[in-house]
Amino acid sequence: MRILITAGPTREPIDAVRFISNRSSGKMGVAIAQAAADAGHDVTLLLGPVMAPATLHDTMRVYRFNTSAELKQMLEAHFPDCEVLVMAAAVADYRMEQASEGKLKRESAGGRDAELTLRLQPTPDLVRAVASTKRPEQKVVAFALEEPMEMEQRAVAKMKRKGVDAMVANPLGTMDGDHIAPLWLLADGRRTEPGRMTKPDFAGWLVGHLNDL
Amino acid sequence: MRILITAGPTREPIDAVRFISNRSSGKMGVAIAQAAADAGHDVTLLLGPVMAPATLHDTMRVYRFNTSAELKQMLEAHFPDCEVLVMAAAVADYRMEQASEGKLKRESAGGRDAELTLRLQPTPDLVRAVASTKRPEQKVVAFALEEPMEMEQRAVAKMKRKGVDAMVANPLGTMDGDHIAPLWLLADGRRTEPGRMTKPDFAGWLVGHLNDL
Repeated sequence: MRILITAGPTREPIDAVRFISNRSSGKMGVAIAQAAADAGHDVTLLLGPVMAPATLHDTMRVYRFNTSAELKQMLEAHFPDCEVLVMAAAVADYRMEQASEGKLKRESAGGRDAELTLRLQPTPDLVRAVASTKRPEQKVVAFALEEPMEMEQRAVAKMKRKGVDAMVANPLGTMDGDHIAPLWLLADGRRTEPGRMTKPDFAGWLVGHLNDL
Repeated sequence: MRILITAGPTREPIDAVRFISNRSSGKMGVAIAQAAADAGHDVTLLLGPVMAPATLHDTMRVYRFNTSAELKQMLEAHFPDCEVLVMAAAVADYRMEQASEGKLKRESAGGRDAELTLRLQPTPDLVRAVASTKRPEQKVVAFALEEPMEMEQRAVAKMKRKGVDAMVANPLGTMDGDHIAPLWLLADGRRTEPGRMTKPDFAGWLVGHLNDL
């Protein structure tokens, strides 16, 4: 299969120096890319601003993004050529309307004891946008990081809203860690709890289950 | 000499997942710590959320921080024992008044197309605070990242305001790169431009010039 995988956080600039990001380590997405390449699939990895592992499979194509706008462009370029997209990247929900070109000064905010107000606007929903362009034979898998309470209901609602074929739902706290205790939800209502495992182990499990789609 | 060195960015949480940070790679501060240890100094490194190099000098004590509040506590604990502090860390100027405990939802901001406003308050000026507790035999070196225009005047003003003994001034764009073209300014008015060099080369130069203080 031709599989496109996104991994890692985005960074949304506030100015030339500062940015808003999130704690995604990229480990889950990178592990999926490795497992998919190990299984003989044709893999393209879109990787955010994290340290790339030294041992990426050499058959893999890797492109690096920083901002959600860069990731959006890469998705538009590479999604048409893939059969399955796994959106493991943690895309920012919000960004500055316009980043400052220089470095924001405390002084310019009205003196060094003044508050600073950042007005953020929602980023486009990349998963929903890409899923809306699917051809019938293409499948999209998304991730949801939710509060433990009502995690499944929230993830199912998100799966429908985004129009994806499957969702890996995780409780908050998974991010940045080495383990995962996911819930695998399919758009047709099937659900599986593979149990707590390492991210590389779950990556192998997930790649084996892409045929469920 | 007993040298305390800070390196890397801080991360100031917005909620359980998101944070504000900056592009500091920690390379400059880590290079100074390595050069100081190589020169036989007793080195303590306070290192932010960057990937630590695999080859840190094994005589070095290393403590990791995430937030500016954690760095502040570490400075209070370790500054009294050092002779020279080199503040190469890029400490956030602003942080959320109170980070949210869970994950901020688009929905809670008034629907997915609503703007989100973050109200930030200035962080305590850690360099100024620590410099104000100096004993006469202790010295503090700070870094300034400035717009190229009027860089020197700004850096000199900052050196006075913060009450430090020396300042390494750099134009914006140095951050995150492998080279540096610094200006070395001393509180007594001396100034040196060592020229453009790699960060490890400048680290060796700087450690050799700590006796100027």
